[in-house]
Amino acid sequence: MNRNVLKFGGTSVSSLEKIKNIADYLKGRVEQGEQLVIVVSAMGKTTDDLMAQVSSITNSPNEQDLALLLTTGEQQTISYLSIILNDIGIKSKPLTGYQAGIETVGHHLKSKISKVNTKLVEQLFDTYSILIVAGFQGFNTDNEVTTLGRGGSDTTAVALAAAQECPCEIYTDVAGVYSTDPRIYPQAKRLDKVSYEEMMEMSALGSGVLVARSVEIANNYNIPIYLGKTLSDEKGTWVMSKTEMLEKKAVTGVALDKDMIHVTLNYPQHDMRLMEEAFINLEQEEINVDMISQIANNEGLQISFTMKDTEEQQIQKIFFRLKKDYPELYFKIENHFVKVSVIGSGMRDMTGVASKVFRTLIEADIPFYQVTTSEISISYVVDAHNGEKAAHQLCERFEL
Amino acid sequence: MNRNVLKFGGTSVSSLEKIKNIADYLKGRVEQGEQLVIVVSAMGKTTDDLMAQVSSITNSPNEQDLALLLTTGEQQTISYLSIILNDIGIKSKPLTGYQAGIETVGHHLKSKISKVNTKLVEQLFDTYSILIVAGFQGFNTDNEVTTLGRGGSDTTAVALAAAQECPCEIYTDVAGVYSTDPRIYPQAKRLDKVSYEEMMEMSALGSGVLVARSVEIANNYNIPIYLGKTLSDEKGTWVMSKTEMLEKKAVTGVALDKDMIHVTLNYPQHDMRLMEEAFINLEQEEINVDMISQIANNEGLQISFTMKDTEEQQIQKIFFRLKKDYPELYFKIENHFVKVSVIGSGMRDMTGVASKVFRTLIEADIPFYQVTTSEISISYVVDAHNGEKAAHQLCERFEL
Repeated sequence: MNRNVLKFGGTSVSSLEKIKNIADYLKGRVEQGEQLVIVVSAMGKTTDDLMAQVSSITNSPNEQDLALLLTTGEQQTISYLSIILNDIGIKSKPLTGYQAGIETVGHHLKSKISKVNTKLVEQLFDTYSILIVAGFQGFNTDNEVTTLGRGGSDTTAVALAAAQECPCEIYTDVAGVYSTDPRIYPQAKRLDKVSYEEMMEMSALGSGVLVARSVEIANNYNIPIYLGKTLSDEKGTWVMSKTEMLEKKAVTGVALDKDMIHVTLNYPQHDMRLMEEAFINLEQEEINVDMISQIANNEGLQISFTMKDTEEQQIQKIFFRLKKDYPELYFKIENHFVKVSVIGSGMRDMTGVASKVFRTLIEADIPFYQVTTSEISISYVVDAHNGEKAAHQLCERFEL
Repeated sequence: MNRNVLKFGGTSVSSLEKIKNIADYLKGRVEQGEQLVIVVSAMGKTTDDLMAQVSSITNSPNEQDLALLLTTGEQQTISYLSIILNDIGIKSKPLTGYQAGIETVGHHLKSKISKVNTKLVEQLFDTYSILIVAGFQGFNTDNEVTTLGRGGSDTTAVALAAAQECPCEIYTDVAGVYSTDPRIYPQAKRLDKVSYEEMMEMSALGSGVLVARSVEIANNYNIPIYLGKTLSDEKGTWVMSKTEMLEKKAVTGVALDKDMIHVTLNYPQHDMRLMEEAFINLEQEEINVDMISQIANNEGLQISFTMKDTEEQQIQKIFFRLKKDYPELYFKIENHFVKVSVIGSGMRDMTGVASKVFRTLIEADIPFYQVTTSEISISYVVDAHNGEKAAHQLCERFEL
C-alpha cells in the first residue's frame, strides 16, 4: 500500500469551504489506492482568538492549562475534516495527539516529540483509508496534554512520516522554497530540490518555511519532504538527502530572520558562576539564544547574544531576578535587529564566499554587529532597516 | 478533608467575566479548607455554534467525529477556569473526561458512564486544591472520545461524587426544585427537600431540572445533591434519601413534559415479529419510548406510544425501513402533545389521588389520550394547548 503523510497549515483550512476542497482532493488520492495520514493545524485565526481570550485574563497563564486550551483548535479541524470525508464516503477517523501516540517531553507549551507510537495507526488502517491527526499537540508521561511550539504541526507530520517510513508532503499557501523571500527580492527563484542541511540552515536562520527540528527528523530518518502549495499544480520543492542531488551551488539561499533583539551582559568580575547561572536559567525557561560572543578582560566579563524578541519579557524577568544575587550585574536589551544569512552546502568546498558577503555589505554601507559562521552558512546581525537591503544586495551578488 | 463536587451549567459560564466570579467564589471555599472537584459545561452557546457549523456540512455527521468536535467546548471552559484559578493563586488542574477516568459505553453521542476511575484524581489532590473536570464527555474501551447526551454534565458531576462518596452541588440559573414550573404557575413553591424517588419521577416526566439517570446514580450511592442558583444566597433544594425526610406529602409536584409526539402502529395480523423488530430497532438507535399501550383484536395489532419529538426523524426512518419488509404496516405520527404528571412519594400510602386528578381534568374540560401510573406518579397525555391549563388546575387542586 502506498502510504503518505500530508500536512495542511492554518490558512489552507481557514474555512469549512477550504476543508471541503481538501477533502475532495484527498478522496481522489484514496481512490488511486493511497493510504493517507493527514495532519492539520487549527482553522485560520483560531489559535490567535483563543490567545486573545487568555490575554484578557492574565499575562502569565498557567502553561499546562494554556496547552490544553490551544489544542482544542486542532481538535476541531480534525473533527470537521473527518465529518466531511465520512460524508463523501471515505472512511476516516480523527485522532488527537494522544490518540495518535505522539509522546512528548519538555515544557507544556514547547514540548518536543520523544516517541511516536504507531501501533494504533497501523491497526486503524485495517478499517480506515484516512487517519486525521491533530498537529501541534501530544502528551507527556504524566498523561498531560502538551503543545509543540512554533512550527509544531510540521513536526507532527514529519515525525509521523518518520515513524511510518513514508514521504511527507507539507502544503501551505507558498509553493516551495525560494532562494530568498520573494517579497524582498522578486527575482528570487524557486528551488526544485534542496538538501536537508541547507534546509536546516535556512530554517534555523529564519527563512520560515519549515522549522529546523522538522528537517532534522527528516534527515535522521531520511524521509523526503515535499513543500508545495495547497491544491495547486504549481511545482514545489523536494527536501532530500544531498547525495541524491546532482548539482551543487556554493550559495543556494539568503535568509532573513526578523525581530531579533541584542542582549548585552556586563559584570565587573571574572565570576563565571553568574554566567553559568544565567545560562541555566535560560535553558530552564527553554529560551533559545542565538549568536553568543564573550569577552573577558581586565574590566571583567562581557557577554552579548541575539535572540527572537518574542521572549524579551521572560529574559527581563530572569535578569532582574539575577540582579538580586549579583547587584553589580548590568544588562541591556536592544531592539530592532535582523539577521541576514547566506546559505549553501557547496560553501564548504568553495572559498571566497565569506569575503564576498563581507564586501557586499561594506559596499552597500550596511554596518553589522555580530557575525557567525557554520559549515554551510554565514550570518550577520544588522539594523532592522537594513535587513531587506542586505538580502537584496546579496541575492544580486550571488545571482539567486 | 472536606470534599465536594460542584457543577456549573452553560449559562453560569457563558462569559469569562462569569467564570471569574465563580473562580472567586471557589477560592473562598478552598480557603475554608475544602477540596473541590468542579464540573463545567461548554460556555453559553458554544455547543450550538459547533452544531450549526456541522449542519452547514451535512445532516448526518459521523457520530464519532461529532462527539470529538463537541467535547472541545467543555475542554475550553476547564482550561479558562484553571487559568483564572492558578492566576489568583489557587492550585488547580483541568482534566478532560479521559483524564478524569470517565469510562463510558454505548453510542458515541449518547454514551453512559460505566465506571469512574478516581485513581488519578486522588493522586492529584496531593498537589492541587481544585480539579476541574470537563462535563458531558468520557471515553470508551477503544479509547475513543464520547459524549453523554442530554444532561450529561450533571451525570458527570453526580458520578464523580458517587465515586468519591461526597456530596454534589449543581448550580444553574434556577434556585432549586419547584412544585411545578413557576412560569406556568407563579404561586409554585420551592421545595427544601425532595426524595430521590420523587426527583426521578419529576426528571423522567420532564420537569427538566436534573436528568433521571443522574438522580438514579445519586440514589444508588446515597449521595445528597444540592440544586442551587449560581452565586446566589437564595436557598435551593436538597435531593436526598426519603428516610431522611420527616414530612411527607401525598403530592409534591406537577411536571409538564412538552414537545411530545404520539406514534400509532397498525398491522392487520397478529404478527409479533414485526413488533419485536420495531422495538429492537428503537433500542439500537437508543430512542426512548415513553408510554406504550397495545391492543390486539380481530382486526390485528395496534400499538401506540409517546416520545420526545427530537427523535421524530429517526423514528420515521425506522418505520419506512420496516415498511419494506412489512408492506401492510401502517404508522402515524401526531405532534403537539404534552404530558402532565402528578408526583408524590406519599401517593402510595394515600388513596384518592388518581380520582382527584381525573376529576380535575374532566371539570376543566381537558381531554386526555393516554394515562400511565407508577407507584408515585400519574401521567396524562393531553393536547399541547391544554398543558399549562392542566398543570395550573392540578397545582390549585393539590395546593402546591
